[in-house]
Amino acid sequence: MTERRRTISLNFNLSGVGHHTSAWRHPDSRTERALDLDYYVQLARTAEAGGFDSIFIADTPALRADPNDALANTPFEPITLLAALAASTTRIGIIPTISTSYSDPYTAARQIASLDLLSKGRAGVNLVTSAGDAVARNHSRSHHIQHAARYARAREFAEVLELLWTSWSPDAVLADREDGVMIRPGGVRPIDYEGEFFQVAGPLNVPRSPQGRPVVVQAGASPAGIALAAEHADAVYARSMSIDETRGVYGALKAGASARGRDPESIKVLPGVVPYVAATEKEARELVREIESRLVHNPAELRVLGTMLGVDLSGYEPQDKVPLHLLPAPEEFNGSVTGFVELRTMAAEEGLTLGELAGRLGGIAPLGMWALIGSGTQVADRLQHWFENGAADGFNLMMPIAPGGVEAFVEHVVPVLRERGLVREEYTSTTLRGHLGIPLEERESARLEGTP
Amino acid sequence: MTERRRTISLNFNLSGVGHHTSAWRHPDSRTERALDLDYYVQLARTAEAGGFDSIFIADTPALRADPNDALANTPFEPITLLAALAASTTRIGIIPTISTSYSDPYTAARQIASLDLLSKGRAGVNLVTSAGDAVARNHSRSHHIQHAARYARAREFAEVLELLWTSWSPDAVLADREDGVMIRPGGVRPIDYEGEFFQVAGPLNVPRSPQGRPVVVQAGASPAGIALAAEHADAVYARSMSIDETRGVYGALKAGASARGRDPESIKVLPGVVPYVAATEKEARELVREIESRLVHNPAELRVLGTMLGVDLSGYEPQDKVPLHLLPAPEEFNGSVTGFVELRTMAAEEGLTLGELAGRLGGIAPLGMWALIGSGTQVADRLQHWFENGAADGFNLMMPIAPGGVEAFVEHVVPVLRERGLVREEYTSTTLRGHLGIPLEERESARLEGTP
Repeated sequence: MTERRRTISLNFNLSGVGHHTSAWRHPDSRTERALDLDYYVQLARTAEAGGFDSIFIADTPALRADPNDALANTPFEPITLLAALAASTTRIGIIPTISTSYSDPYTAARQIASLDLLSKGRAGVNLVTSAGDAVARNHSRSHHIQHAARYARAREFAEVLELLWTSWSPDAVLADREDGVMIRPGGVRPIDYEGEFFQVAGPLNVPRSPQGRPVVVQAGASPAGIALAAEHADAVYARSMSIDETRGVYGALKAGASARGRDPESIKVLPGVVPYVAATEKEARELVREIESRLVHNPAELRVLGTMLGVDLSGYEPQDKVPLHLLPAPEEFNGSVTGFVELRTMAAEEGLTLGELAGRLGGIAPLGMWALIGSGTQVADRLQHWFENGAADGFNLMMPIAPGGVEAFVEHVVPVLRERGLVREEYTSTTLRGHLGIPLEERESARLEGTP
Repeated sequence: MTERRRTISLNFNLSGVGHHTSAWRHPDSRTERALDLDYYVQLARTAEAGGFDSIFIADTPALRADPNDALANTPFEPITLLAALAASTTRIGIIPTISTSYSDPYTAARQIASLDLLSKGRAGVNLVTSAGDAVARNHSRSHHIQHAARYARAREFAEVLELLWTSWSPDAVLADREDGVMIRPGGVRPIDYEGEFFQVAGPLNVPRSPQGRPVVVQAGASPAGIALAAEHADAVYARSMSIDETRGVYGALKAGASARGRDPESIKVLPGVVPYVAATEKEARELVREIESRLVHNPAELRVLGTMLGVDLSGYEPQDKVPLHLLPAPEEFNGSVTGFVELRTMAAEEGLTLGELAGRLGGIAPLGMWALIGSGTQVADRLQHWFENGAADGFNLMMPIAPGGVEAFVEHVVPVLRERGLVREEYTSTTLRGHLGIPLEERESARLEGTP
């Protein structure tokens, strides 16, 4: 690991319309460009100018239940968009999301290794287990895989990726024109993986990529998710309801990594933050008010809420109390367990109606995430506080509106953090691992040594 | 369909090292750049300057049995490389290959629709059923899916793609800021597909792409392959052993399309050609001699041959006769049936040794493909002859060496074809369907009509 000052890792959670559910209605959003690659290139280059470590795209392989969210995150499959953005940027990392429950690990390993080669070492992958029966029904299943099984499957998936990515030794490609030997004997090995969910012979048919092992990100917050991350993840997207809760997760992840013989510095904890930033606090508050004023409440919200609670709400009205007696026990619930417990607790403790509970989902930050409102200095102060008090190695920045969100952050917050030495003035490495400061087990890339 | 003069469709079958198995050893090849995106951008732009309709990448989701072929086609997964090339070109089409036997159709539909959006209407997909147990063993199966079952699965796969791609109506995205309606009611519909192999609820979570339905290519030459193509394909990569054989396939595909109520002009037949082109015939022949002189014979060739024959040849030597009595009957053979029959016939009729038969696989053109050697005018003459005599609507051009192959073709052949009015002087359309002259069932793209 290179000696360098520890800095805050900034990661851009890309959305073409913005993460606030009504951002697309704001006159400054670019909803009409949400299908235009050139627009995403502009967003990516703004983040790159701000010294961000990566662009990340969240993903669910199903259409959102709320039709107003149809263009949420990006309307593209993330790997394809990020491959195109890799060709249009030079330093910033790229992290697509892949569902371990509904993807094939050989194909996933190939696509991510290819991204790493195409971007010259800037690729990662966010592994999620997905949630909801709607996803299952797009992939020839009637119901989502059960929680325990899908984490067991996710663990195997991560293992297969790691084995395939290292199935070519760093010096495997000999390309000796004179002797006619392309591959060094023994340089490429099968993996012969025999799991409960996957049996994969290998080797990969993509050469070793520059990072050796592209960066693996995880986001699950349940005990199973934390265990998986402590074992396999280089970075974790965490929740950020409060600094105390997040410090608990931060500590659990670092301790879990240590317990598995890993350097705790080798796992980066990145809480989600929704920054409403402007030149002044007053303007930032005005921005919040303006976006909120466009919030749409429609019947689909109860559908979304029903999915998150694991109960059919089609016979209910927004003014009805949350039917707590119908909710499944957490151990029987098959969606995102963490979100479920939080919603149930809110509803029970505050006696909320369905409409009120749905409103919490459509608020100024997604459920479980921290809305941070203020001037550049105010926002920088709060990020620094979390960074210096054991709650964050950096942040997963969910801009409420696009393109204004990332532009305002780069204009107002980044200069303050740079002045404090907390964000580098320019990139000091060419790979995503380098940006994150995560040691490489294997430092060599598949270098082609052929005579020219 | 627009009125225009019928022209020859040129399609670039991309390989970073060249399609001849020993091309990588030639001093003019760029083997050391085979992992460098900038090099592929250069190849793509050369083809675009030559007015090619598309770049196509063949693919098998397993490492080649012959280690000297490890970088064959491209060392990248095709969708990722072509997404990056889409961002680096403006007009040429992009056609990755997807295995219908080992891929998920929802993910495939998303990735190809995304490519179509990112490229503004230039995407297609080549659907293959794959061959060989090595592929199966990378995807949690011990054996490859049987011939009949994999074509039945391929048909369902193609049906699911088409339904998902049209699950958003062309005017589905309303993006009405004032009234807060993102999606037009009824504009996005589930597909509720219930097949034997796939059950897919839909709708797609990617909006309708510019072409409505990206171009579907097929390459199977067995009766099942031709039937599938006649039903679902917009273009077919055909073999080219002789003009008579290819005219037979051409006629069968056009007749099959007609029988299914399709315009025979709506399916384009593109035989594979391996052009060895230079300023003069003498130089072209010299190029062939030079590449051939570097041909490597090694034990892996018998492994490859064994896979293609469905028999384990590990106890045999190159000088042994082909053990015809061990070969399976064609109806029991589970690889590429067409290639199998051809090899078996050669071996039986000519009494070949294993080494001789393996040599046919490593010749100047891949098995079943036409090596065309000569000056620009000579090559143009032959292509024109096939085009005007019912054997081809265009060609799948497999350059023997890179980057020289495509450069020589664009320098020597394209000007002759342009002078004869057989290749357009410049692109007259922006989409791949437009380049190919294939009518669109749905002409509208998902236009975003939101107020700016």
